Amino acid sequence: MKVAIVGASGAVGQEFMRVLAEQEFPVDELLLFGSSRSAGRVYTFRGREIRVQELTHDESLFSGVDFAFTSAGASTSKEFAGTITARGATMIDNSSAFRMEADVPLVVPEVNGSDALNAPRGIIANPNCTTIQMVVALKPIMDLAGISRVHVATYQAASGAGAAAMDELAEQTRQVVDGQQPTVDKFAHQLAFNVIPHIDIFTDNGYTKEEMKMYHETKKIMHAPDLDVSATCVRVPVMRAHSEAIWVETLRPVSVDEAREAFENAEGVVVIDNPSEKSYPMPLNLAGEDPVFVGRIRRDLTNECGLSFWTVSDQIKKGAALNAVQIAQYILRNR
Amino acid sequence: MKVAIVGASGAVGQEFMRVLAEQEFPVDELLLFGSSRSAGRVYTFRGREIRVQELTHDESLFSGVDFAFTSAGASTSKEFAGTITARGATMIDNSSAFRMEADVPLVVPEVNGSDALNAPRGIIANPNCTTIQMVVALKPIMDLAGISRVHVATYQAASGAGAAAMDELAEQTRQVVDGQQPTVDKFAHQLAFNVIPHIDIFTDNGYTKEEMKMYHETKKIMHAPDLDVSATCVRVPVMRAHSEAIWVETLRPVSVDEAREAFENAEGVVVIDNPSEKSYPMPLNLAGEDPVFVGRIRRDLTNECGLSFWTVSDQIKKGAALNAVQIAQYILRNR
Repeated sequence: MKVAIVGASGAVGQEFMRVLAEQEFPVDELLLFGSSRSAGRVYTFRGREIRVQELTHDESLFSGVDFAFTSAGASTSKEFAGTITARGATMIDNSSAFRMEADVPLVVPEVNGSDALNAPRGIIANPNCTTIQMVVALKPIMDLAGISRVHVATYQAASGAGAAAMDELAEQTRQVVDGQQPTVDKFAHQLAFNVIPHIDIFTDNGYTKEEMKMYHETKKIMHAPDLDVSATCVRVPVMRAHSEAIWVETLRPVSVDEAREAFENAEGVVVIDNPSEKSYPMPLNLAGEDPVFVGRIRRDLTNECGLSFWTVSDQIKKGAALNAVQIAQYILRNR
Repeated sequence: MKVAIVGASGAVGQEFMRVLAEQEFPVDELLLFGSSRSAGRVYTFRGREIRVQELTHDESLFSGVDFAFTSAGASTSKEFAGTITARGATMIDNSSAFRMEADVPLVVPEVNGSDALNAPRGIIANPNCTTIQMVVALKPIMDLAGISRVHVATYQAASGAGAAAMDELAEQTRQVVDGQQPTVDKFAHQLAFNVIPHIDIFTDNGYTKEEMKMYHETKKIMHAPDLDVSATCVRVPVMRAHSEAIWVETLRPVSVDEAREAFENAEGVVVIDNPSEKSYPMPLNLAGEDPVFVGRIRRDLTNECGLSFWTVSDQIKKGAALNAVQIAQYILRNR
C-alpha cells in the first residue's frame, strides 16, 4: 500500500506516522508532504528515513497513492484536494474544509463507518476532535434509547491548537513560575493558570465555530437531523487530551446500570467509573491512549429521561490521526 | 461594632480581614480566633496588630460580639456554634454545617437578603462558592421569565480547597516544569496540567457532595423547590476564580437581548460579552474582583426556552468572605 501524509511536520502529521506504525497499517511506501518551509526535513518511519517533499500542484506526486492523510489546514486541503485525488488516491482529510459537503462523507468508524464506502469525490472528512470523542460515547446511548438533545461543556487541551501551541503553554507556565511576563501568541489570551471560553472564531449566533462544529457534525455523523447540540467549548491548561461534561436527553428513561452496560459493550469506549477509588477519566493519565474513556455516569437530576457523564480522549489520537487511520482500515476491511 | 473572625489564618479568614477593610465595615474591635496551632499568630488590621486567640468553649470570648464570621470547617462550626452565639453574636458561617437546616437561613443578599432577618438560632449560613456565583446570575433570569431547570459544568480554582491547596498547585507546576515528580497531597490527583472531575466526596447517586450542594442550596436560596440543577464539578489548574458554563430552561422564550439587559441591570452582576474583541470573563483577569461576571450569552440551541451563558467570580471573595460580609451589611441596613 502506498500512503501519503500531507502536513507531515505538524502535531497530527507526526502522530499519523506513529499511528500507522502502531496499527501495523500495511504501508509499503510512505510519502511525506509539507510546505516549502518544512520540505527537506527528514523523519524516520519503521527504521527508514523519509524526506518531506514540498506539496505542489504536480498530480504525479500522488501517482499510485492509495490513501493520503491530510492535516495542513482547511485552505491547503481545499487548494490541493484536486491534485491529491486526481490519480485515484482516497484523501482522508483532517481539516474542516469538506466536512459539511453533501458528497463528502464525515466518518467516525464506530458510528457510521459504512458512510466511508461512498465517497464520490475520493474525499472522506475526519470530524473535529471534540465531535469524534462525543459521538463515540453517544452512539451506544443512541442505540439503547434514542437521543433528542445534548448539552456539552468541553475542557480542551492545548494540542488542539497545534504543536506550537503546546510549546507555548509549556513556555508560558515556565515564565509564570519564574515570575516573568508570559508570551501570548497562539492563544487569544494567556492559557497558563487560566481557562479561555473561546476556541476558533465567533459566529453570528454567539457560538464559536468550534461549538457549531459539534452542532452540525453530530447531526451528519449520527444521521440525526433533529438531534440538537448546545456546546460551550473552553481551552484549559492541559497538554493533549480533551475532556467533556455531557448531558443527553433520551427518548425513554435509561437507568445508570443500563447506560453503563451499553458503554462497556460499545466499540471504542472504555469505562473508568469507580468513584470510591477516585477512579474516573482524567486527561493527564490518558494522553497517548486510543479509546474514548467514559466515567461519572449518573442520572440527569433535572430530567427523567436524562443521563450525565464525562469523557476523556486523546485529541491527537482518536481526535485526529487514529480516527483517520481507522477510516482507512474500515475501507480496507469492507470494500 | 465588635466583630470576630473564626479560622483567621485560613485563605477565607485572611480574606475576611481584607474585605472588612475594603468595605469599610464599621469595625470598632476585631477579634481573631483559630486552632491551638494558629493561636499566637499576629495579623495587622487597619494598622493595628491583632493576635489570634485559641477558640475554646468559653462563652465569654464572644461577649459583646455583634458578628462572628466563621470559616474553620463544618465540624468546628458545629462544635462551637453554641459558644459563639451564646451571648447574642450573629454567626455568619461559611461552612456547610448548617446550610440545609430549616431554622438557619442560607443567604445571598442579591437573591434572598431578607431571609437573613429571620435567624432564630443566631446563625446564618453562607452558601457554597459555586452556588453563590450561579444564583447571582440566575436571579435576573428567574425574575424575567422563571427557570425550570439548570445544567452547569464548573471550572473550579485551587483556592476552593484552601490556601495550602493553592500552594500545592504552584509547587506541582514548578516540579513539572523542572522535570520532577509532583507532590500530591491536597487534591485527589495531580492538578497541574490536568483537570479532576471530583470535588468533595461522592454520594450514593454518583454525584459528588459539591454537585449536590448546587442542587439543594439553589432550591433553598431561590425559594424554588421545583428548580432542579444537574452539575458536573471539575477542578482546573487555576488559582482563585471559578468559572461555570450554565444552561437554563426558562418558562417562556427569552431573547439574548432581553437576557443581556436583565444581567446588565442585576445587582452584583457585570456583563463582559464582546466576542469580536475577544472579551468574555476569564478567571486569570478577574481574581480579586467583587462581582459575578457574565458573558457568552446566547440561545440554547436545543431548546426554544433555553439560554446559555458563562460566569466567572472570585471564589474567596463573592464565593466566600465578601458574600458573608454583605449578609452582615444587609442586616445592618434593614433590621
